[in-house]
Amino acid sequence: MERPRIGLIGLGTMGTALALNIAERGFPIAIWNRTAQVTAKVVAQAGMLADRIVPAQTLADLVAAIAPPRAIILMIPAGQPVDDQLAALAPYLDRDDLVCDAGNADFHDTDRRMAAGLPFRFLGMGISGGEEGARHGPAIMAGGDRADWDRVAPVMTAIAARADDGTPCAAWMGQAGAGHFVKMVHNGIEYADMQMIAETYGLMRDGMGMDAAAISDLFTGWNDGPLKSYLIEISAQITAAADPRTGRPMIDMILDRAGQKGTGRWTAVEAQHLAAPIPVIEAAVMARNVSARLGERLAGEARFGPAPQPCDLAPDTLEQALIAGKILCYAQGFAMIAAAAQRFGWSLDLPRIARVWRAGCIIRSAMLNDMAAALAENPARNLILAPFFADLIETALPGLRQVVAQGTAHGHALPALASGLMWFDLMRTGRGTANMIQAQRDFFGAHGFQRLDGLADPHGPWGRTI
Amino acid sequence: MERPRIGLIGLGTMGTALALNIAERGFPIAIWNRTAQVTAKVVAQAGMLADRIVPAQTLADLVAAIAPPRAIILMIPAGQPVDDQLAALAPYLDRDDLVCDAGNADFHDTDRRMAAGLPFRFLGMGISGGEEGARHGPAIMAGGDRADWDRVAPVMTAIAARADDGTPCAAWMGQAGAGHFVKMVHNGIEYADMQMIAETYGLMRDGMGMDAAAISDLFTGWNDGPLKSYLIEISAQITAAADPRTGRPMIDMILDRAGQKGTGRWTAVEAQHLAAPIPVIEAAVMARNVSARLGERLAGEARFGPAPQPCDLAPDTLEQALIAGKILCYAQGFAMIAAAAQRFGWSLDLPRIARVWRAGCIIRSAMLNDMAAALAENPARNLILAPFFADLIETALPGLRQVVAQGTAHGHALPALASGLMWFDLMRTGRGTANMIQAQRDFFGAHGFQRLDGLADPHGPWGRTI
Repeated sequence: MERPRIGLIGLGTMGTALALNIAERGFPIAIWNRTAQVTAKVVAQAGMLADRIVPAQTLADLVAAIAPPRAIILMIPAGQPVDDQLAALAPYLDRDDLVCDAGNADFHDTDRRMAAGLPFRFLGMGISGGEEGARHGPAIMAGGDRADWDRVAPVMTAIAARADDGTPCAAWMGQAGAGHFVKMVHNGIEYADMQMIAETYGLMRDGMGMDAAAISDLFTGWNDGPLKSYLIEISAQITAAADPRTGRPMIDMILDRAGQKGTGRWTAVEAQHLAAPIPVIEAAVMARNVSARLGERLAGEARFGPAPQPCDLAPDTLEQALIAGKILCYAQGFAMIAAAAQRFGWSLDLPRIARVWRAGCIIRSAMLNDMAAALAENPARNLILAPFFADLIETALPGLRQVVAQGTAHGHALPALASGLMWFDLMRTGRGTANMIQAQRDFFGAHGFQRLDGLADPHGPWGRTI
Repeated sequence: MERPRIGLIGLGTMGTALALNIAERGFPIAIWNRTAQVTAKVVAQAGMLADRIVPAQTLADLVAAIAPPRAIILMIPAGQPVDDQLAALAPYLDRDDLVCDAGNADFHDTDRRMAAGLPFRFLGMGISGGEEGARHGPAIMAGGDRADWDRVAPVMTAIAARADDGTPCAAWMGQAGAGHFVKMVHNGIEYADMQMIAETYGLMRDGMGMDAAAISDLFTGWNDGPLKSYLIEISAQITAAADPRTGRPMIDMILDRAGQKGTGRWTAVEAQHLAAPIPVIEAAVMARNVSARLGERLAGEARFGPAPQPCDLAPDTLEQALIAGKILCYAQGFAMIAAAAQRFGWSLDLPRIARVWRAGCIIRSAMLNDMAAALAENPARNLILAPFFADLIETALPGLRQVVAQGTAHGHALPALASGLMWFDLMRTGRGTANMIQAQRDFFGAHGFQRLDGLADPHGPWGRTI
C-alpha cells in the first residue's frame, strides 16, 4: 500500500464515515482515536477498504504513518477538545503539516486559532450532510489560506457530493474562519427551512384536518416542483412512516419539544453583530426555544384554550407560501454572508456558496441552482431583486400573504413564515414608519434626525403644536 | 459649606444634569471634567446651586475635595474610557472609596471590572430618563454589593423619580452587572414599545388614511386608558407638532431611517445566550436595521410596488392590539430577566424591577403598577399567566389578532406586533409542530426524540412506510 498522505483524528460517527469515504475514493488514510478499541473496530468494519486504512496506536504513530507534508483531519467535539488536540499535535508536526478542523467549530475559535500562530498550517473546514453525507458525499466549506485548501482539495473534492452538473460541492470559501462561518449560516438556514416546513405541516394537520398519509402525499408532490429538496423529501418520508410500536403514524407519536445544538443561536447572535437582519432564522430559533417550555405551553392552553382553529387553505396556496418563505429566508442568509465579507474582509463568493450547497448538505435543493445563477449576475444585489426571484416572489407572495393572514386569524403560530413576510414588506416600502421612531428618539434623547427635504434642521420643535 | 461626600466625573449633558439634580437635593458635590472650561461652565450655569458645587481642576483635586469614604459617579462614554478612568483614579483612592459607573455600560464589562479586583469599591448603575430624567428624576438600577448600594442609596433615592405611590425609582437590582443588565433589558423593551407604536401609527397613516392631527388625537385619548405611558404621551405631542420650516406636520418631514446605539442589539444577543425568547424586541431591532437600508427599500418598492394598502380597522381595535402587544413584550422581557437571575445567580427581584420602571425612565407606564403586583404574586410565573394580565390579554387579543391578520393581508409590515402574537400562540399551544422538527433531526442526524406515550424508543423507523 502507498503511504498515506492524510490522517484523521476522531472516530465518532462522522469521523468514521469520513475516513471510509476517503479510503473508498482511493486515498490511503491513517486513523487514530483516543480509545484504541474504537480504531480497531473501524478497521474491522471497513471490509475491503481496510487495506487502505492504517490504524495508529498513538498520536506519534499517526504522525509517523503519514508522508510529509502531512494533512490531518480533526473530527472531534468543538471547543476546548480542539485546542487540546492542537496542543498535543504540536510537538509532532512540521511547519508544513496541515491540520483541518472538520468539526462544528465556532468560526470565532477558528479565527483565533489561525491568528495564534500555530507551529503548523491550519484550515477550518465546515462539513454538512450528517453521517450519510460524510460517508457518501458531504458538502465541504473550507476557510483559511487558499494555498492550504489547494493542497487538500484533490481529496476533498473527490469525497464530496456532486451537483447535478457534476461540480463537487467542496470549495474554499474565504480566509480565516470563513468556512465555519458559511457552515454556521447554512445551519441557520436549515433551522429556518425546517421551521417553515413544520409550520406548513401544522396548517395541514390542525387547520385543514389532514392525516399523516395525506400530508405525506402533499410533500411528495411538492418534491417534484420548485420546492424539490432534501428536507421536503424526508418530510414526505417521515409523515409516511408507521410507528412499529403502535402502528400509528410515527409523526403523531413524537413529542413536540425540539432540541438544538446551538448553531442556529450562533447565527442569530452573529447576525446581530453584523446588523444583518435574518428574522426567519431568529423565528426558527425562538420556536425551538418555546417548544422546549412544555409546562408553560400546557398551562397556557389550560388558561386560554387551544390556539389553532380550522382554516380553509388550498394545498397550492401552502406550496406558494413555502416557496416565497424559502426565497425570503435565503435572501436574508446570503445578505448576512455579504455583510460578513465586508466586515471581515473575506473574499466570500456568494454564487460559489450557493453552488456548494446544491448537494451533500441538509439544505440542498433545486432552487440553489437558480440562486447561484442569480447571485452570479450581481452578488451585491439582494436576491429578492434578482429578476428570476423577483418574478417568483411576485407569483408566490399572494400565497404567503394569504397563509399568514388566514393562519394568524385562526390561531396558527407561523413565526417563520410571518417573519419572512414582515421583512419583505419592510424591504419593499420606500416610506416606512421609522420617522416615528426617529421623532421619539429626538424627543427624549435629542438624537436628531434627517429631514425628507434635506434641510439641515435635525431637531423637532417639540413643545409647539399645530 | 459642608464638605462633599460625593463627586462626579464627566460633565456631558447627562453628567451635568445629574450633578445639578444632586446639588438641588441638598447634597454638596465635587465635579471634574477632562476639559476644565466645561467644569467652569457648569458652575456658572448652576445659579443658586453653585454654592453646593465644588469644581475640581485635577483628578487629585477632585478626590481631595471629597470626604472619605468617598463616592464618585462616572458619567462618561462606555467601554475603554471607563477602564482608562478607573486606572487613572486608582492611585488616588482608598480601599473604602466607591466608584459608581452610571454610564451605558455593557453589563459584561461591569461583571469583568467587579471580578478584576479593583483597589476600591465599584458599583454598576444603569440610569434611564434622558437629560430631563437625569435633571429632575431618573430611574436608577444598581448592581454590585448590596452594602455599597446602601452607602449611596440616600443620595440616589433622593434624586430619583418617584412613582405615584411615592416610592423612589432607584433600587439595588442584584450582584455584579445586574444593574446594567436590567437597564439593557429596559432599553430592549423601549425599542419594542417604540416599534409597536410606529406600526400602529403606520396603520393609521397608510391603512386608515388619518392625518397627523387625527393620529395625535387618538394617541392623546389612549393616554387616558390602559396605554397611559410616557411613549404614548410623547407620540401624541410629536404628531401634534408643526414643522417651523414648512408649517406641515413635523412627523411628515422626518426621514424614516432609524438610528440605534446598540443596546437593543445587546439585548437580542444576550437573550440568545440565555435561550430566552424576546421576539418582539428582535423584531424591533430588525425593523430599525431594515429602515436604514433606504436604497434597497426604494429599489424594492420600484420593483414590487408599494406594500401598504387601505385597511379598515377601528381605532379601538388598534388600541386593543397595542395593549396586547405591550403585555406580551413585557412578559418576554421579564422572562428574560428571570432566566438571567437563574443563569448568573443574581437575586433579581422582578416586582422590584417593575416598580423601579414605573417612573423616571423612558418605558414608564401605568401598566407597570399592575405588572409589579402580578409579579409579586408569583415571580416564577410568566406574566401572561397572572390572572390580571391573562384577563387583559383575553380581552385585547382579538384586537391584536385582527390587526395582524388584516394588516398582513393589506401589506402593512407589523413585525413587532406579529412577533408578539406568534410567540403567544406558541406559548398557549400544548401540542405544537416541533414533532416535525424532531423527526427531521432524527432522520438526518440520529438526534433522537421523546415519544408522547413515554415509551423508550428514541429513533424513528425511517425507511419503512405506512
